[in-house]
Amino acid sequence: MTHRHIHRLRVAFGDCDPAQIVFYANYFKWFDTAALEFFRACGVPSWRELEASRGIIGAPLVNASARFVSPASYGDDLDVETSVADWRRTSFVMKHTIRRGDTLIVEGEETRVFAMHDTEVAGRIKAIAIPADLRALCERP
Amino acid sequence: MTHRHIHRLRVAFGDCDPAQIVFYANYFKWFDTAALEFFRACGVPSWRELEASRGIIGAPLVNASARFVSPASYGDDLDVETSVADWRRTSFVMKHTIRRGDTLIVEGEETRVFAMHDTEVAGRIKAIAIPADLRALCERP
Amino acid sequence: MTHRHIHRLRVAFGDCDPAQIVFYANYFKWFDTAALEFFRACGVPSWRELEASRGIIGAPLVNASARFVSPASYGDDLDVETSVADWRRTSFVMKHTIRRGDTLIVEGEETRVFAMHDTEVAGRIKAIAIPADLRALCERP
Amino acid sequence: MTHRHIHRLRVAFGDCDPAQIVFYANYFKWFDTAALEFFRACGVPSWRELEASRGIIGAPLVNASARFVSPASYGDDLDVETSVADWRRTSFVMKHTIRRGDTLIVEGEETRVFAMHDTEVAGRIKAIAIPADLRALCERP
Repeated sequence: MTHRHIHRLRVAFGDCDPAQIVFYANYFKWFDTAALEFFRACGVPSWRELEASRGIIGAPLVNASARFVSPASYGDDLDVETSVADWRRTSFVMKHTIRRGDTLIVEGEETRVFAMHDTEVAGRIKAIAIPADLRALCERP
Repeated sequence: MTHRHIHRLRVAFGDCDPAQIVFYANYFKWFDTAALEFFRACGVPSWRELEASRGIIGAPLVNASARFVSPASYGDDLDVETSVADWRRTSFVMKHTIRRGDTLIVEGEETRVFAMHDTEVAGRIKAIAIPADLRALCERP
Repeated sequence: MTHRHIHRLRVAFGDCDPAQIVFYANYFKWFDTAALEFFRACGVPSWRELEASRGIIGAPLVNASARFVSPASYGDDLDVETSVADWRRTSFVMKHTIRRGDTLIVEGEETRVFAMHDTEVAGRIKAIAIPADLRALCERP
Repeated sequence: MTHRHIHRLRVAFGDCDPAQIVFYANYFKWFDTAALEFFRACGVPSWRELEASRGIIGAPLVNASARFVSPASYGDDLDVETSVADWRRTSFVMKHTIRRGDTLIVEGEETRVFAMHDTEVAGRIKAIAIPADLRALCERP
């Protein structure tokens, strides 16, 4: 089981490019925002709190992909539906579906890890095993 | 055969997030910049000129993906190496490899089409068959 | 008299920089978003419709300024209060006040004009006299 | 006396908005980039190094303003000329002039302070007196 969370946003003028449609990198920004809103809705503490309490600096990306189905433009209200599609040992896959009403706009996936600063190499981060308590928070229906 | 183009950029402070590393959506922005610089280096006219002369408004995305191998941070000089990996009837695949010196940072692909405004549905765009002359420009060694 | 409009937004992780606070250029992006939401709330048609019906492509900036009073970070809910502080012949001044609860975060002003494409010089835009009907829409209490 | 530094950038497609011109908040992003390139050219250590060695987390903004003189669009090469126009006790004023060839595009100012984390209030930062050595680096001709 996994939680599903809907994050609503309105496309701003500055999110669009000279082709009058959303500049595509912004969809990945919104995936990231939706991912954080998903964690927040599940009761996962903010990265700020997790870094202070447990050294977990966040959930950086291993890979990300998106399929762009229909264009959107400024003034559109978009719903980003987010869930965790797969839990692995050190990584997990978040699925995002963006719709405007019933129209599918973008589908995407992010593979993420929970990360800490690497104490052996300054400036490096490393993945940790998925913390069971954080996973449990995300799996509550 | 295909052209290879290297686009160099320096990571700015504002490109990085509270984890001190590049906010991941920016890599897709840089893929797009590198794609345009690739076309420019090949002699493809700007979208502005192509829209005026032939109604081609650009090369919007069908899908995009990236694999994040090592983090980068502000002040880093990154090289984005871009080529066209595959030409299909109406779409083509651009491959981008981002390195800092010899260190692989990110690998990604974009599938794009050449698009015009749809004359039958206001606000819609549609893919056209790859224009042979634009493809030929990109295939010159 | 002038309308007042409140635009609420939540600061995203990707809006913040390595100092853990909102990267300052984003406040100007939010001024722009709040300006458009102000116009929308007043009943001003979208730039898309105004360009199609009257050739008005939008309300570009003449100048902009901001005073940064307190930092904000991701997860914060911010209210942007927007009004038109001054109407001149061809320009007008929008005032934006951003607060988190009772805490003042940022104050700013934008001077804007309504613009059309310049029919005499390709690629140039020019300011027009403030359209009386658009001003009237913004002045309704 | 003060140093002058020129930062060159090429406007990307994704920097522009549906009016086909640079989305205005990006000029402030480029002011920030030019400010950091100015410091780097003067020999000021990176914020990363200054935070590690002296607790100085950067040079956040007190206020910023810009006057938009001519529009620019994607493909344009812009030069940002940066200098420190005024040194005060805890703040300093950076001046940025953006040109495309001989054409003035944007003029702006940023008032900044050097900041440290406030040890008394978690999550707050505070300005410090301008470090004499950092100022001296910026004043070398």
